[in-house]
Amino acid sequence: MSQIERVAIVGGNHGNELTGVHVVKKFQQYPNLINRASFETLALLGNLKAIEEGKRYIEKDLNRCFTNQGLQNSQLLSYEDMRAKAIQQILQPQNQPFVDVIVDLHSTTANMGLSLIFCDMHPFLLRLGAYLSSINPLVKVFINQESKENGFLRSLCELGFVIEVGAVAQNVLNAKLFQETEQLIYAVLDYFERCNQGNIPQTSNHLTLYKYIQTIDYPRSDAYGGLRLHGEIQAMIHPQLQFRDYEPLHPGDPMFLTFEGKDIFYEGASTVYPIFINEAAYYEKGIAMYLSQKQEEIV
Amino acid sequence: MSQIERVAIVGGNHGNELTGVHVVKKFQQYPNLINRASFETLALLGNLKAIEEGKRYIEKDLNRCFTNQGLQNSQLLSYEDMRAKAIQQILQPQNQPFVDVIVDLHSTTANMGLSLIFCDMHPFLLRLGAYLSSINPLVKVFINQESKENGFLRSLCELGFVIEVGAVAQNVLNAKLFQETEQLIYAVLDYFERCNQGNIPQTSNHLTLYKYIQTIDYPRSDAYGGLRLHGEIQAMIHPQLQFRDYEPLHPGDPMFLTFEGKDIFYEGASTVYPIFINEAAYYEKGIAMYLSQKQEEIV
Repeated sequence: MSQIERVAIVGGNHGNELTGVHVVKKFQQYPNLINRASFETLALLGNLKAIEEGKRYIEKDLNRCFTNQGLQNSQLLSYEDMRAKAIQQILQPQNQPFVDVIVDLHSTTANMGLSLIFCDMHPFLLRLGAYLSSINPLVKVFINQESKENGFLRSLCELGFVIEVGAVAQNVLNAKLFQETEQLIYAVLDYFERCNQGNIPQTSNHLTLYKYIQTIDYPRSDAYGGLRLHGEIQAMIHPQLQFRDYEPLHPGDPMFLTFEGKDIFYEGASTVYPIFINEAAYYEKGIAMYLSQKQEEIV
Repeated sequence: MSQIERVAIVGGNHGNELTGVHVVKKFQQYPNLINRASFETLALLGNLKAIEEGKRYIEKDLNRCFTNQGLQNSQLLSYEDMRAKAIQQILQPQNQPFVDVIVDLHSTTANMGLSLIFCDMHPFLLRLGAYLSSINPLVKVFINQESKENGFLRSLCELGFVIEVGAVAQNVLNAKLFQETEQLIYAVLDYFERCNQGNIPQTSNHLTLYKYIQTIDYPRSDAYGGLRLHGEIQAMIHPQLQFRDYEPLHPGDPMFLTFEGKDIFYEGASTVYPIFINEAAYYEKGIAMYLSQKQEEIV
């Protein structure tokens, strides 16, 4: 592994996720907090207009605009398409690698604790995950290999990843999560500093990770007309599943509760680990939760 | 007290408060759930367009549009001004009293449990509050007498009140709160039915209520330019206060935590009871919490 020379920390990729917005504003005000001797750190706000308006996005989800095709298409003129190109110019001037790491800060209404989301099983990231989860049990590692072509900001860079914190409502600051996120970022930066010094911290070579299987939608009525992508939801996350992210869901466990009060059970063949349970922004995407499988790795 | 002849239940006065929206949709689908022998019940959705878009409102807060002046002003043409007039036509055709009770369903990111919000100390409402809080300890009664001229929907009717449930994120359904809200509404309707039968339920003549004192804003920088009403926030709700609605806040207790990690303390002279702590929609209104005083009443 060569040296890390530049790290980018991005907050407010979604404008109503205030933790990342205010962590980045703090770093912009006090850059010495994120400076390290062996590398440079940029702190950057993502969707400026959506942050101003307290929305996830203005016209489309900025964190789906970073596809090669979209970034090269001069016909795409929505605010988010333009902003994606501007962010790419900062992080990859002249389309050349410039930052070595992107840390993309998100928050969620699901009880995700402090989650690291990786696009693949890159050994450097897995070792980072093993280290961070060994020093803080709130840290969980989720691997979503399906996400490579989805236009996520983190895909701009081999070592791009998401820090996803929750549960916290949209447009709300939770002081405890703010401080935990901040401390996690310092731990990440200190880890890079020690890697650059050839002194890689390794408290554990063991990593528990959660791997993407599929998404599950809410039970819905048939979609009607051309106006809606999805039909109306017919059930809610079951009270016994709510806030139970990363806990086992066994075949036959209750999963949803209809508005009439009827339980709907998980009918899969094997135990899975739901995450992103009841994320507000995913209702419109047709996602009630992600299912993952738990896996132990030696890194 | 004369007979109650018509009750209106309104959900989605704010479009991103899903509990009320789906409780009302259920009642519209199964009207027998809210029918009682001695009175009629209407179930009505408030801000239709905002519900469709998952927003609190489109142009302005619908629940501030029910002023006499606004309702009579034919120059006001925003979606919410028009919708307020349409709702008034349903609830007060020909400007005559038609419904005797309005139950306005809201949800909040603050930990308000099942709160009843009254505009005044109407004896009928106080007895209702005493009854409901005696059968369910999650029920709290907040009196906000300042709110009469604010254009709230509930002000259309002498016996108008709000049911405010939380903590729940905007645009999220929490099944437990959904069911608790539904059960509370049935208890309200059953209470009216027994009043009409001359058989007023009274398990307790004692009521603990919380009376409005003032709102408290976040510590902020100076507002800049003409674009923003409020400056940028400089601190968050203190972790020791978060989710502690209706609990005592004593002089000297921590109230906010700055982004730099400094505690800010409550400097009032006497113990107060904060509510609506960290409600997402109130950041833009310059409200970090309401302060209330606790009071015991014999009703």
